[in-house]
Amino acid sequence: MTLELQDMNIGLSLVEIIDYLGTFAFAISGLRLASQKQFDLYGAAVVGMVTAVGGGTLRDLMLGLVPFWMTQWSYIAVVMLALILFTFFHRHFNHIAGTIFLFDTIGLALFTVVGFQKTLDAGYAWWAAILMGMITGAVGGVIRDILINEVPLIFRSDIYALACIAGGLLYSICLWLQIPIIMAQLGCAITVVVIRLLAVRFHWQLPILKE
Amino acid sequence: MTLELQDMNIGLSLVEIIDYLGTFAFAISGLRLASQKQFDLYGAAVVGMVTAVGGGTLRDLMLGLVPFWMTQWSYIAVVMLALILFTFFHRHFNHIAGTIFLFDTIGLALFTVVGFQKTLDAGYAWWAAILMGMITGAVGGVIRDILINEVPLIFRSDIYALACIAGGLLYSICLWLQIPIIMAQLGCAITVVVIRLLAVRFHWQLPILKE
Amino acid sequence: MTLELQDMNIGLSLVEIIDYLGTFAFAISGLRLASQKQFDLYGAAVVGMVTAVGGGTLRDLMLGLVPFWMTQWSYIAVVMLALILFTFFHRHFNHIAGTIFLFDTIGLALFTVVGFQKTLDAGYAWWAAILMGMITGAVGGVIRDILINEVPLIFRSDIYALACIAGGLLYSICLWLQIPIIMAQLGCAITVVVIRLLAVRFHWQLPILKE
Repeated sequence: MTLELQDMNIGLSLVEIIDYLGTFAFAISGLRLASQKQFDLYGAAVVGMVTAVGGGTLRDLMLGLVPFWMTQWSYIAVVMLALILFTFFHRHFNHIAGTIFLFDTIGLALFTVVGFQKTLDAGYAWWAAILMGMITGAVGGVIRDILINEVPLIFRSDIYALACIAGGLLYSICLWLQIPIIMAQLGCAITVVVIRLLAVRFHWQLPILKE
Repeated sequence: MTLELQDMNIGLSLVEIIDYLGTFAFAISGLRLASQKQFDLYGAAVVGMVTAVGGGTLRDLMLGLVPFWMTQWSYIAVVMLALILFTFFHRHFNHIAGTIFLFDTIGLALFTVVGFQKTLDAGYAWWAAILMGMITGAVGGVIRDILINEVPLIFRSDIYALACIAGGLLYSICLWLQIPIIMAQLGCAITVVVIRLLAVRFHWQLPILKE
Repeated sequence: MTLELQDMNIGLSLVEIIDYLGTFAFAISGLRLASQKQFDLYGAAVVGMVTAVGGGTLRDLMLGLVPFWMTQWSYIAVVMLALILFTFFHRHFNHIAGTIFLFDTIGLALFTVVGFQKTLDAGYAWWAAILMGMITGAVGGVIRDILINEVPLIFRSDIYALACIAGGLLYSICLWLQIPIIMAQLGCAITVVVIRLLAVRFHWQLPILKE
């Protein structure tokens, strides 16, 4: 957790819990798609792992940092736990789809905040931080879709990455207005969650680019 | 522009214009394919962005540098401008296909020169510079094709990346003969443009690898 | 070879030979699939190159190092040699399929050892070294399959990457027991080779993740 969240000003233990729940939910989304493609346990483990940590890994490589999970074994442990639970109880995961979706959504919010903050701390501009917050949240799913040989889902449907961008924009405005950082982070996270929930509830879609 | 072109010896303002025109044309090629795949505006923006800056990003990561666009917002602005213009005037883009192709070709030439020079400046050998010049010019289109879930176009048809390699070879020979760097750069760029134009005009193809 | 193998304690010339044979065999696997997809010579060269050096490249980027082949032209030369031989003698490659498979297997073993050792030398934990050993051996094939637009083979069949993980585990145990490093490396390599051979001989498969 050190590398990833050391600069967060929210109480660490709550943030840790959210971070692991989000990692778990992202991994489950990878496992579910891997199982639809008849992947074996190894393939599923890779897709789950990549979905969970792929966004943060690309962000860290672009920032010139070591990928956060390489110095912290707990992320891999969470993905392995997800694999074991999904293998034995996959039927039950349908009953808790709502719970998993909730974990996924607050995970997305936290990943956005962490990606934004880490980019600012590395000395980049606010607009680069918005992009890195979005990359942290959304790129894992894109690599997942490449690995299962599908067109990335978020390129064709749903407001997903835009929620991260909106959160990052609010974060930037808060910092510009010199609002305390803890408020900026909370505002960013809430923005991501609310937009994502509304988008799913009301089937918000972006216009298709016509040819 | 600082990071990307600071070491170029051609007049900066002309190079800047070419760089932005090339970025614009690369983005349009991504937007066109994204629209054929019914991507939404977000998906199209990502594909356009990746097509335009993907090659330079991979090059910078391999050279241990920060991706050039992360310290210079203008590249993202050019891609957003391409997205707006394509969204509203996509029909007109068919009428200026020749112009776009020209931008694309001189963009390819400039990207090759920049990739070559940046690699030499980072202390690598001439053959690594040739490869990085090619990667700068050609990898954006490869990642674009992966994102739209197609086999990369340049693996099956057309002389494209070979034009970059030929340009890089000439650049290397010029440096070996101690020809002034501005001449080497111009020679490299002209080689890329001429080979690319001839390849399209006369349908030059590489042999298919038979099984 | 300097960067890649400088920390190996096995005699360099034998290791060099194995390294080049492995690179050659990996490149051939890429060329074979590229030819099935009707790629042209350039596309085949890229797929062969990526198959051979893709795993080590991702490992080096994650470790914050320069990709090993960028300071050593011999890897590219080996891939070009494979391309030339495959182009002219592709029919004969069917007759030596067993030999190529053997090269591939000992190459996989060596790549695992090198990836493990390089990660330890860079200061990471044993479990990160196991993952990097596996990434060095297995990721080239995954990127190959993405480039030819197929679902990665190792996600659906065969014990392949697991052999690397088993080898890395043994390596870790040997280091923990303070067994001399040369023995640990040999044990790791033999583990990879034996598991891979047994897996192919007896059609070992991992369970499919059911939905």
